[in-house]
Amino acid sequence: MKLIRFGEAGKEKIGVQINGINYDVSAFGGDYNEQFFAENGLARLEEFVKANVGKLIEVPAGTRLGAPFARPSKIVCIGLNYRDHAEETGAAIPAEPIIFMKSTTSLVGPNDTIVIPKNSKKTDWEVEFGIVIGKKATYVEENDALDYVAGYVLHNDVSEREFQIERGGTWDKGKGCDTFAPMGPYVTTADEIPDINNVRLWLKVNGKMYQDGNTSNLIFSVPFIISYVSQFMTLLPGDVISTGTPAGVGLGFNPPIYLQEGDVVELGADYLGESRQEVVAWAKG
Amino acid sequence: MKLIRFGEAGKEKIGVQINGINYDVSAFGGDYNEQFFAENGLARLEEFVKANVGKLIEVPAGTRLGAPFARPSKIVCIGLNYRDHAEETGAAIPAEPIIFMKSTTSLVGPNDTIVIPKNSKKTDWEVEFGIVIGKKATYVEENDALDYVAGYVLHNDVSEREFQIERGGTWDKGKGCDTFAPMGPYVTTADEIPDINNVRLWLKVNGKMYQDGNTSNLIFSVPFIISYVSQFMTLLPGDVISTGTPAGVGLGFNPPIYLQEGDVVELGADYLGESRQEVVAWAKG
Repeated sequence: MKLIRFGEAGKEKIGVQINGINYDVSAFGGDYNEQFFAENGLARLEEFVKANVGKLIEVPAGTRLGAPFARPSKIVCIGLNYRDHAEETGAAIPAEPIIFMKSTTSLVGPNDTIVIPKNSKKTDWEVEFGIVIGKKATYVEENDALDYVAGYVLHNDVSEREFQIERGGTWDKGKGCDTFAPMGPYVTTADEIPDINNVRLWLKVNGKMYQDGNTSNLIFSVPFIISYVSQFMTLLPGDVISTGTPAGVGLGFNPPIYLQEGDVVELGADYLGESRQEVVAWAKG
Repeated sequence: MKLIRFGEAGKEKIGVQINGINYDVSAFGGDYNEQFFAENGLARLEEFVKANVGKLIEVPAGTRLGAPFARPSKIVCIGLNYRDHAEETGAAIPAEPIIFMKSTTSLVGPNDTIVIPKNSKKTDWEVEFGIVIGKKATYVEENDALDYVAGYVLHNDVSEREFQIERGGTWDKGKGCDTFAPMGPYVTTADEIPDINNVRLWLKVNGKMYQDGNTSNLIFSVPFIISYVSQFMTLLPGDVISTGTPAGVGLGFNPPIYLQEGDVVELGADYLGESRQEVVAWAKG
């Protein structure tokens, strides 16, 4: 299945995408949140959809998409998890995963605007393959880790490099600004991806391809990451782990290239769909 | 007012403490969460309490206290915000606040058990003065910052020093383990603290005083911190900012002193009450 949420920000309804068409399933009840994933919501929703085939109402064309799940308890990110990206930033290849956290208030819909924060000069892009957790995970073994996955999601881990790197403390300072986590268009359930170790992901700015990677080049694999993070904190149903970005971010160029008002970011990944964000300055955000 | 939550973990009811006695106010409805703080809950609750004076039911003695608010969208922490603590850890005095984040799954009641994580050798304590945000805060000016405060809370920012410092990446890795954020006993509303710049806070382990500080020694003040954090992320009603710990953590001793199974941690702060945590090993947690 492909889970979507649609409608006005903060008042999204739930839906599914079937053969490229978005359908309203709000009659199923609830939201794609911790409770939904914890209480076997995916299987129940699949039954609901089967029982209502031909009767589901299409979402009107042009309707805004929200993030494809409710605000999770946390968005955990893995840093420098592609060798080519670590090299472009001048960082060492990490010996074990780097963990940082994005404020969940940064979460927005896949095609919402990216607002350059006040006083920002270095707002950058990062296409990522995101994991959506399906059940509570504490001290999970790597061999069991995929049992804890509900699905996967496309994520632009928007990052302010001065805030992240030059302002002291942890990376969190440059990762959690409002609009810095466009996710979606949908959650693709795990059964729909034949090989998570072979997913191409790419990102363009103003039509020019900047990132073109593949999860086959992840330093730390999806099951390893889930197991690893669960040693340090409990993952709840609906939580997101973003697995890192391949080479081609703005910081990696000489001189660096950062997002400017009017820029258009497009990104996509096999099985996860595509998203598009226009960039606006803070004062006009 | 002093807000409490009581009962079984995950099923807490809301209450208030008046003259040292805990009363059930679950008839007021809802929880101490984002909606409560956003929708003028403090003022409405005060009216409710006044209207029901003499009719409120006492919470039975021995009832467990939960964290005094529902799981917030985020727990933001300020690092090295007391000069004496920065010095004891060998760190430089920060030029601007260090921000890191605790997983909200680490939140527990004030007198719950601290579980030493699996494979932990360096679990440490940190008494802190926590700010509970009362309304949505984005790019707040320092002069206006206190208008965004609902109240204050006692917090033991439990920290695993190896995970935090020696395992690569950000401090978040050693801050968000389960049970690492005992908060409470209550939220003391802002009106009940005459001077937030003169609050003594202390922490004992097995009866011995290890930390004995005062918010008068904060490097960055409460209003400055609120304003600062709100430049990098939006704070929601019910969110917590923990303002840092004074000297006397286990890491600061030579050799360092870390928590062991059977240890008892007691902490307190003027106006914010006291809490007590027994320490257990992971296998027995």
